[in-house]
Amino acid sequence: MKVILLFLLSSRAMFILNSFLTKTNCFKILRRIGNAYSFRLPSTISPLGFLRSISDKLLQELVPPVHYSETKVSVIGAGQVGMACAFSILTQNVSSDVALVDAQEDKLLGEMLDLQHGAYFMNSPKISASSTYEVTANSRICIITAGARQREGESRLALVQRNVDIMKSIVPQLMKYSPNATLLVVSNPVDILTWVVWHLSGLPRHKVIGSGTNLDSSRFRFLLSQSMKVSVKNVHAFHCRLEHGDSSVPVWSSVNVAGVKLRDLDPNFATKKDEQRYDEIHRKVVESAYEIIKLKGYTSWAIGLSVSQICDSLLKNQHSIHCVSIPVKDCYGIEEDVFLSLPAVLGEAGVSHIVKINLNEEEEMHLRDSAHAIAKVSSEIKW
Amino acid sequence: MKVILLFLLSSRAMFILNSFLTKTNCFKILRRIGNAYSFRLPSTISPLGFLRSISDKLLQELVPPVHYSETKVSVIGAGQVGMACAFSILTQNVSSDVALVDAQEDKLLGEMLDLQHGAYFMNSPKISASSTYEVTANSRICIITAGARQREGESRLALVQRNVDIMKSIVPQLMKYSPNATLLVVSNPVDILTWVVWHLSGLPRHKVIGSGTNLDSSRFRFLLSQSMKVSVKNVHAFHCRLEHGDSSVPVWSSVNVAGVKLRDLDPNFATKKDEQRYDEIHRKVVESAYEIIKLKGYTSWAIGLSVSQICDSLLKNQHSIHCVSIPVKDCYGIEEDVFLSLPAVLGEAGVSHIVKINLNEEEEMHLRDSAHAIAKVSSEIKW
Amino acid sequence: MKVILLFLLSSRAMFILNSFLTKTNCFKILRRIGNAYSFRLPSTISPLGFLRSISDKLLQELVPPVHYSETKVSVIGAGQVGMACAFSILTQNVSSDVALVDAQEDKLLGEMLDLQHGAYFMNSPKISASSTYEVTANSRICIITAGARQREGESRLALVQRNVDIMKSIVPQLMKYSPNATLLVVSNPVDILTWVVWHLSGLPRHKVIGSGTNLDSSRFRFLLSQSMKVSVKNVHAFHCRLEHGDSSVPVWSSVNVAGVKLRDLDPNFATKKDEQRYDEIHRKVVESAYEIIKLKGYTSWAIGLSVSQICDSLLKNQHSIHCVSIPVKDCYGIEEDVFLSLPAVLGEAGVSHIVKINLNEEEEMHLRDSAHAIAKVSSEIKW
Amino acid sequence: MKVILLFLLSSRAMFILNSFLTKTNCFKILRRIGNAYSFRLPSTISPLGFLRSISDKLLQELVPPVHYSETKVSVIGAGQVGMACAFSILTQNVSSDVALVDAQEDKLLGEMLDLQHGAYFMNSPKISASSTYEVTANSRICIITAGARQREGESRLALVQRNVDIMKSIVPQLMKYSPNATLLVVSNPVDILTWVVWHLSGLPRHKVIGSGTNLDSSRFRFLLSQSMKVSVKNVHAFHCRLEHGDSSVPVWSSVNVAGVKLRDLDPNFATKKDEQRYDEIHRKVVESAYEIIKLKGYTSWAIGLSVSQICDSLLKNQHSIHCVSIPVKDCYGIEEDVFLSLPAVLGEAGVSHIVKINLNEEEEMHLRDSAHAIAKVSSEIKW
Repeated sequence: MKVILLFLLSSRAMFILNSFLTKTNCFKILRRIGNAYSFRLPSTISPLGFLRSISDKLLQELVPPVHYSETKVSVIGAGQVGMACAFSILTQNVSSDVALVDAQEDKLLGEMLDLQHGAYFMNSPKISASSTYEVTANSRICIITAGARQREGESRLALVQRNVDIMKSIVPQLMKYSPNATLLVVSNPVDILTWVVWHLSGLPRHKVIGSGTNLDSSRFRFLLSQSMKVSVKNVHAFHCRLEHGDSSVPVWSSVNVAGVKLRDLDPNFATKKDEQRYDEIHRKVVESAYEIIKLKGYTSWAIGLSVSQICDSLLKNQHSIHCVSIPVKDCYGIEEDVFLSLPAVLGEAGVSHIVKINLNEEEEMHLRDSAHAIAKVSSEIKW
Repeated sequence: MKVILLFLLSSRAMFILNSFLTKTNCFKILRRIGNAYSFRLPSTISPLGFLRSISDKLLQELVPPVHYSETKVSVIGAGQVGMACAFSILTQNVSSDVALVDAQEDKLLGEMLDLQHGAYFMNSPKISASSTYEVTANSRICIITAGARQREGESRLALVQRNVDIMKSIVPQLMKYSPNATLLVVSNPVDILTWVVWHLSGLPRHKVIGSGTNLDSSRFRFLLSQSMKVSVKNVHAFHCRLEHGDSSVPVWSSVNVAGVKLRDLDPNFATKKDEQRYDEIHRKVVESAYEIIKLKGYTSWAIGLSVSQICDSLLKNQHSIHCVSIPVKDCYGIEEDVFLSLPAVLGEAGVSHIVKINLNEEEEMHLRDSAHAIAKVSSEIKW
Repeated sequence: MKVILLFLLSSRAMFILNSFLTKTNCFKILRRIGNAYSFRLPSTISPLGFLRSISDKLLQELVPPVHYSETKVSVIGAGQVGMACAFSILTQNVSSDVALVDAQEDKLLGEMLDLQHGAYFMNSPKISASSTYEVTANSRICIITAGARQREGESRLALVQRNVDIMKSIVPQLMKYSPNATLLVVSNPVDILTWVVWHLSGLPRHKVIGSGTNLDSSRFRFLLSQSMKVSVKNVHAFHCRLEHGDSSVPVWSSVNVAGVKLRDLDPNFATKKDEQRYDEIHRKVVESAYEIIKLKGYTSWAIGLSVSQICDSLLKNQHSIHCVSIPVKDCYGIEEDVFLSLPAVLGEAGVSHIVKINLNEEEEMHLRDSAHAIAKVSSEIKW
Repeated sequence: MKVILLFLLSSRAMFILNSFLTKTNCFKILRRIGNAYSFRLPSTISPLGFLRSISDKLLQELVPPVHYSETKVSVIGAGQVGMACAFSILTQNVSSDVALVDAQEDKLLGEMLDLQHGAYFMNSPKISASSTYEVTANSRICIITAGARQREGESRLALVQRNVDIMKSIVPQLMKYSPNATLLVVSNPVDILTWVVWHLSGLPRHKVIGSGTNLDSSRFRFLLSQSMKVSVKNVHAFHCRLEHGDSSVPVWSSVNVAGVKLRDLDPNFATKKDEQRYDEIHRKVVESAYEIIKLKGYTSWAIGLSVSQICDSLLKNQHSIHCVSIPVKDCYGIEEDVFLSLPAVLGEAGVSHIVKINLNEEEEMHLRDSAHAIAKVSSEIKW
């Protein structure tokens, strides 16, 4: 179990080993058998029990209150990405009922308390946390941010295999407590892991979504908006990174500002004649994550906001279009059963439609190649 | 049926009679038998059918989209009050799925189109409307604003009787299509009609709520805040108007600004020694509705916002406290099965708790008298 | 003065004449000389003076509080359109300081009280109102919704002339109290009246904006979104109605859903080959206002939301693009000094840029014809 | 200068020293003379210059756009606290123009990019950052989160002295670029540093505010609300920690739920007779910060939300009441010129009023002792 903790909790591993030795008096380890999420938060974090007698003097019960809402969202993994997701969802009024799950109990407890202390400044949300999965019961959406990071020299397959093992400890637990939830996968490599999670969940294909290139599209729009001197809201563009870090088909032909296509303004815009500059923008979008990780150590705010927006579309049944990881079999001549990041319509049902963007022959071939590559890795996974 | 329409549609009755004669070519009257809400909106308001072929070229369906959300709210009655409720709920992001029902089809169609045309400026909500109740299917909350207004010289009982007949045409229809909804009654006299609606619905007691004196409390707070020079959010006070327009127990003893009780600052504040000034504030709160009706013809904004806040507490399971019409049997020695406006805790379950405010002997007696009076009227209703 | 009141207050004229005779004891007429807005709201609407002694016991003053905020918005005209603007601005958190001006004092007082009573349910905004213009002092934006409506058989010029006279009573007063405000004209015919208001204001051209076809564009998007089964937020389209009700250049070529141009999906989409269906959509957008007025008597919600969004872009310096009435001299070969509705970038400066949409030769000619027509009417105005 | 950086950047110091050696090719060090904030962000973070030619084809300029808004907020210090403040302010729509300043350029650049990439998911805000203070020009509020943390064994005076030196490098720069800003101090010890910043700023007393015990009050409310089973919004209580970590006067007498005083329900509530339980709650509030730091390494979410709420009250002129660090000379018999955390009314003017909460003789004496203690430390500061 300690091995699993080590890669899950990355930067805090040393601190944890230490706290294991010193804080076991604080946290009661109730169950340890079988998976990494076996701790239970100590009773001391529950509110002050003795106030209940005053509560009884104050309130007369008509019916026991319900302890979850119809828009409950659970976040698996309380690292920087998971917490930015939770905080965005709470501050942007996407849900007022958020549950956190993480194996690292001290960090988790700290994050829960920190959010709870701010409840007065939000819409008085319910915030719960546990190292076990009962806390996720009756979720509408479960966001999976937990996962191993690539080690130096590690092959893609080896990384995927390690994450498959982690997902096997997470997904059945989520399904047990929220059989009707939509699953939203944020962990990387996102397209392939979304397929893995779908596989493990037993859910219909449209109920499992990956965060895909929704954030890359936002970065693309932001970069374009800055030079255009217009609001990012008026720049319409998609960046379909078909497999994380490997191959890409940015949809240059559709880039427009308030309906005015940039290629109508300059026919050479982002074409082969313009290749150098095209590469600069493309490169900037693709490298953004790496650049920010190099600068601040991790990415958090933008991925949190991106995930929050996807949840809003799902919970409020908006039928809005996002570039997310979706099942693409039978689209563009793809024969394999894989997930790739393409624009799709999201609503209460999950993914209801795929948007059929125009791709030329070369781009379609590129897409099929990506599907092949992913399918090959998938076929080698040991279940 | 025309008689029912006349009192339902009040100020627009003349216009309607005229439109009945001239617009029957526009609206197909499909069903007319049995109740006032028998029209169906014409197919011409549906979107432009021929665009579907382009939609098919644009989108590939994975699964049929769901057409309602978990936070659907229906508003019965598209008059000034009903529309202010709907608009507040939409603009304050309480729900993104609102259905309207009204017997006056032209007015209803106009309101629906007017809201839909603003969808782009809101969170792309779904807005539907019909003169029949299928449109309310799967609502989480149904808000009833329809109802007859008091005629000159009409007795309270006669008014209640007329509204009972209207509620009999509404409540069974709502229960048929949304058997698990919480019902929120806004029509007046609100305390007694909430009891009537509960009676007709077959729902457990805590699932039927009246808008009560939530708005009166807000008026009370506003009046106090203005002279205090502080935000209305920092003025904590309840105004429990026990029966609409008749008897009142304002809770003066609890009035505080940011926790500082006004009676601690001035022991004579709002006591018998201070009676004249007490009467002025009390009178202003009670007369507010009448004053605004005299000035602008109706009240709308504040009642819409008040109802929107109650819905927010219910949908987001906030466990927050509002002065609403609730069942009070066995509280304060009340023996009758009546609803009165007292502070209560609202959440996903409906009303979960009654807040036991301190009342002195005289105030409690006052409360029991109100209960007697309401019970007497209730007992004379012809079902 | 009574004449002015009659056309300003339209549907309530009879009621007013009556209230003039009976309520002069209620409203003190302080100044009547020179313009239509000469009443002052009675002192009785101010809060309860006697509470000030308690306020003094509660609070110790460090510095006198400021009574306006940097985002103050004034709304001139408290009819259905003006009130929907005010309510949208308040509930969507665009501004927390709204002042209302109208000549019809009883209606105005009723609207102000109705909004104030809901302050507790909003972000505790400041809401003020008066029949005189001191109340608008230090506004960042002044929205003009007042204006005469077209009489049967009245020529366009005659209508414009009547509204010029009204604007002459409004604009200098606004400039006196808020010399740095941006003016936002909603009154119709909007393009020509925006030019009139600019002319009267002495402001630089980019500080006077008309609500233009921002709402028409929203209607266009909504109609398209409905059949496309996608969120209205993903439909990008502009509807540039160049002069209200007369001539139009809908920008069909730019219509796209999430970047996918509908004309790429179907080359005949909304072309001459497809003329009948094109006309149906175009007609629906243009006729929307008339249809809703016929159905419910006026339009309110969508225009209120449209104006609220324009204010948000201005106050929050968003540099976002809206179809609004702007000065178009020297664009598309236009030589006259007129305002037309075209996409423009809005920010703290007002209009900073015009978006150069692609127009073909015929469309450009159409645009120049509109400019001629407007310039001709403008030249005949008696100042 | 390296010394200053070391304590400013605390937990990342080692990383920085390393990056100094390796990344100077990436960041051009333009000015290094005289203060810790002498770097300028590299030109590579500016948007893609070559797109400007397309922008010129797209837009025709009427007037140069303004590059700041009236609600601009600057955050000094891009650590966990500063970033949680910035993110809360952006996601809760308090301001759409946030500038960040920090000496640690790589971290700062990473944070700015991470926020900017999320702009599409927010209200398209402007986010800027620099290691120099020009970027803060025309701020309405400047939030100071930078500061040294207490070293083991360090005396309070020594800590204050180190922070005075830091504030001397910050405050004059803020005043140079935003002479009319309100300053909001978050750095600890907050009461004494608020006085220091006021002293250095030359601003009137009511324009400098410390975050004080606004967050402690929220924690107090949350703890109470949990056992009461009601929304934290209905629990009204203040926790006035008079000097950080040293002495406290929780205002138990005013604790009420929806106006019902807990001491009215149980006269012994939080009195001497009830001392043990009183201590438990009090202790929990006071120790919260330390507990969370122990668990997750720092506090962030709740302090960010608390600061965001204070900014909202200031920018929207709400006249709402918060427990913040304010000048208390001449209150409760205090003779020294110190700042302590008491409830105060906040608006556009800054602090306009102090709320005169009832204190008994013992509590007042306690307060005067705190004032003495703070004044003593203040008098020993070397300027």
